[in-house]
Amino acid sequence: MSRNVVIIGAVALGPKAAARFKRMEPGSKVTMIDREELISYGGCGIPYFVSGDIPDSRELRATSFHMVRDENFFRQTKGVEVMTGVEAVRIDRQARTVHVRDVKTGDQGSLPYDKLVIATGATPRRLGIPGESLEGVFHVSNLRDAERIREAVAKGKVKKAVVVGAGFIGLEMAEALCDMWGVETSVVEVAPQVLPRVLSPVLARMALKHMRMKGLRFHLGEALKELSGHGGRVSCLRTDKSSLEADMVIVAAGVVPNGLLAREAGIEVSPRGGVIVDERLRTSDPDIYAGGDCVELRHLLTGQPFYLPMGSLANRQGRVIGTNLAGGDARFDGAFGSFVVKLFERSVAGTGFTLQAALDNGFDAASVLIVQPDRAHFYPTREPMTLELTFDKGTRRILGVQGYGSAGDAMVGRVNTVAAMLSARATIDDLSNLEMAYSPPFSSAMDILNSLGNLAGNVLAGRNVVAGPDEFEKLWTGGNGSGPYFLDCREEADAKRLLECIGERWHNIPQGQIRELQEEIPRDKPIMVVCNTGARSYEALVTLHDLGFPDVTSIQGGMAALNDYGVML
Amino acid sequence: MSRNVVIIGAVALGPKAAARFKRMEPGSKVTMIDREELISYGGCGIPYFVSGDIPDSRELRATSFHMVRDENFFRQTKGVEVMTGVEAVRIDRQARTVHVRDVKTGDQGSLPYDKLVIATGATPRRLGIPGESLEGVFHVSNLRDAERIREAVAKGKVKKAVVVGAGFIGLEMAEALCDMWGVETSVVEVAPQVLPRVLSPVLARMALKHMRMKGLRFHLGEALKELSGHGGRVSCLRTDKSSLEADMVIVAAGVVPNGLLAREAGIEVSPRGGVIVDERLRTSDPDIYAGGDCVELRHLLTGQPFYLPMGSLANRQGRVIGTNLAGGDARFDGAFGSFVVKLFERSVAGTGFTLQAALDNGFDAASVLIVQPDRAHFYPTREPMTLELTFDKGTRRILGVQGYGSAGDAMVGRVNTVAAMLSARATIDDLSNLEMAYSPPFSSAMDILNSLGNLAGNVLAGRNVVAGPDEFEKLWTGGNGSGPYFLDCREEADAKRLLECIGERWHNIPQGQIRELQEEIPRDKPIMVVCNTGARSYEALVTLHDLGFPDVTSIQGGMAALNDYGVML
Repeated sequence: MSRNVVIIGAVALGPKAAARFKRMEPGSKVTMIDREELISYGGCGIPYFVSGDIPDSRELRATSFHMVRDENFFRQTKGVEVMTGVEAVRIDRQARTVHVRDVKTGDQGSLPYDKLVIATGATPRRLGIPGESLEGVFHVSNLRDAERIREAVAKGKVKKAVVVGAGFIGLEMAEALCDMWGVETSVVEVAPQVLPRVLSPVLARMALKHMRMKGLRFHLGEALKELSGHGGRVSCLRTDKSSLEADMVIVAAGVVPNGLLAREAGIEVSPRGGVIVDERLRTSDPDIYAGGDCVELRHLLTGQPFYLPMGSLANRQGRVIGTNLAGGDARFDGAFGSFVVKLFERSVAGTGFTLQAALDNGFDAASVLIVQPDRAHFYPTREPMTLELTFDKGTRRILGVQGYGSAGDAMVGRVNTVAAMLSARATIDDLSNLEMAYSPPFSSAMDILNSLGNLAGNVLAGRNVVAGPDEFEKLWTGGNGSGPYFLDCREEADAKRLLECIGERWHNIPQGQIRELQEEIPRDKPIMVVCNTGARSYEALVTLHDLGFPDVTSIQGGMAALNDYGVML
Repeated sequence: MSRNVVIIGAVALGPKAAARFKRMEPGSKVTMIDREELISYGGCGIPYFVSGDIPDSRELRATSFHMVRDENFFRQTKGVEVMTGVEAVRIDRQARTVHVRDVKTGDQGSLPYDKLVIATGATPRRLGIPGESLEGVFHVSNLRDAERIREAVAKGKVKKAVVVGAGFIGLEMAEALCDMWGVETSVVEVAPQVLPRVLSPVLARMALKHMRMKGLRFHLGEALKELSGHGGRVSCLRTDKSSLEADMVIVAAGVVPNGLLAREAGIEVSPRGGVIVDERLRTSDPDIYAGGDCVELRHLLTGQPFYLPMGSLANRQGRVIGTNLAGGDARFDGAFGSFVVKLFERSVAGTGFTLQAALDNGFDAASVLIVQPDRAHFYPTREPMTLELTFDKGTRRILGVQGYGSAGDAMVGRVNTVAAMLSARATIDDLSNLEMAYSPPFSSAMDILNSLGNLAGNVLAGRNVVAGPDEFEKLWTGGNGSGPYFLDCREEADAKRLLECIGERWHNIPQGQIRELQEEIPRDKPIMVVCNTGARSYEALVTLHDLGFPDVTSIQGGMAALNDYGVML
């Protein structure tokens, strides 16, 4: 059967759907239009092009075999007709026609279709504040903007830059400017933490500490009020709390799905503007598919709609649409929200819910945090990573995991493994027993994921009582003698430095000597036990419980977490 | 409730069970015995101690906080009594007593128990050939042997070594000798490939090629017949095919479970000697638990017993036993056989079945092979990896994955993710849509796992017809003009070198020009299409099918796989 398919949008989803469909039905016709001239680029690579890691923007448009994906490429290698600089202005569903307009000439035309794919993507959110259109203010909506940014920094025209928004793209762009070009870069974020919603406050502060050490400046919990300048060029930025100089401002305050075209055609669209699709990625019109950054997804933990504009999801959805266009029956059920982002020499990654997100979604949830190396503790190249696990207390089901660490690939591997477990509705007990490929250069005999499941089980059973570095800090800095008894249960050699620095507020009894030296420990105070990573302090807590001490807490992640978090001891 | 627990064996499982139990029941008594003096060491780290990566053998016995796990450590920090140099000679189940003997003095004694744990481990398989007891022949059964090996190589006494067995330990030991100490090292293996049973012949040959390049010599498909020497020291080794000089021989021909003690006590033991346990790790005597290298496991794909001596499984089982000793209800259901091994600058990893194992176990299975980088193809630090997926053709269920590549952590992460999917009985379609955390420094928008699922689906649907580098080699080297038409569908610049070297047997039509140049392609011959990695040759095949060419095959993994495999073009 020969079909005539029109695809609106030629980045990520569109090309993938087109190519898949053409491979399944080489005899059918596909026309793909895009209002831009540059198409089918790896948008997620933009920060690495801006930084210079990727020398030429053509690489973001090239295949792995170095052919640039332009109109000619699609025609010749995929059998797909592409019209660039052509905008869809209206979908006439009755007549099965897309009305189009040439962006440069204004010429109008129409494209009839049997099946239509809406792949209109998303647009960077505009803040709606004065000065947003000044020269030097960028919203990074496409590769051309990226080229302009890179050109400006490469010419040394930018001394001070401000990035608005501490989400994935904002932080990646900030790193690109600061790390590779030495631009004095500040990040303004309205939320009180970086990566709001996807990271817990504890992991976010660990990431923040590292980025500050690498030279980025942060203004968290500040709302941008105004951009101003002279001669039409931005030079200053005012938040509700401070005023900053800036030769360049990059607004990375999220994106908004481009659902207007669909909405105007009477296709169902969510309140936030995302096109609504079923698990076959069909819109409310069965002849029209949609996917990528313009659609609403289903969250696989709740079944509720959510929005997650990611190139990876767009690609997978594109293939599903391509299959279904050819009469197949492929599904895309939704997502757990897996992510990873490199931040200088660290990375953060996660899947599923943070504790706060789980609570907000009605789960009776708890979370635990662990620090452990990626490899056997005796293997020379090990690197620590911190993982935080959120789980449901009643069903013991895993709800999410997030991590912070230097060990990028190793940590991402753990996160992806947990994501696969989320699909299977796995529990913390499954995590305890999880089979992980083992060899000392790659993992511990008891992998960090196993330890994480163990920790969750112990906390849930009340065998372990934990507090995080945030709670430690509150008690430590707020303390005036009435706080808990801080007990360092490491060996004397490890505790020595702190004992000397801090003096009488810090106490040291090695874990193995607690039973014999129990008289030294007050019975009328809460006791907070700390070791290197939380393993020995758990054992100390068990001993103290056995000795009848009623109120004992172990610092999860131990000194390693306190250091990464930046507690001043 | 206070219990008296005796544990026979103090490496991996024993200590873990003891410590877990004591944390749950601090008031109970645990006595752990071991016939060796050195206990609780990380046995999997032995090759890295022999190589010198780990400077001191004490590190294999130390905790992450640098305390050596000796008798005193267990007494003081875990509340566990340890008796070293003490051997269990008989279990009297009626009297609930273990009869023991001091290895040095021969003194006998007995230990009463309420609950007993058998953690007797395994013994390296002896070959039963002449000369096996000569000086210089090692079976690496414990840390003392490792110390002796290292001492000998460190003193420069070893010029030529032979490792017998190309399994995990054999290859790790061979690398240690060759890479770090410059010993001329040969590996003798009776099977025709390295890592028999866990890797396909194709991946095994890729690994072999790399190890040969790094200086190891191999005698595959050779059976060791005799060791000989002079003055009681080994100097020569004879197989059924060759004769080798050797100052040192390391026999790494697998291990045999130490099930004799259990068997003699009337406890159920498998034909191969592994103690039989249920999912709570209880033996046929409900007061006696067993785990680690001395037990038979259940394979989670078949439910059938199998044997997989791994430190990681032993640790997890130890915890399960510790919980159950304290009246808990923890389970250990079995394993999929996940593994990873570092081989110089490459690694191989896997989980579940290879194609051959799946067929042997009665599955209607097929496999596909793919080569793709770990990161976005435009990201500068990408490294290729090769993955081979085995799946059931009827149910589409994933049965296993194995990989070869330089990207260790990234590849292991993929393997662990698939292992988690095996538990969920996931299909190749789940793999196509699998949500992987995405950012260019860590993955592709279409991750290699997604591509692998896609490839399997296309092959199963007959849309893609693939052959591996092994089949290519057969046709290429066996060809005399009557073979297939070899069509390189890369761009001319990429194909040029081969065209010049090979001449008329090699043909080049870029994928995008096949339609217009179809007249050049013979219609009366099978056509074998090749590109860089198999993606373009698939598209070429689709076009050729559409043009009516009846017999077209795409080389999976493309030139990348042919190179790694070592096809001489």
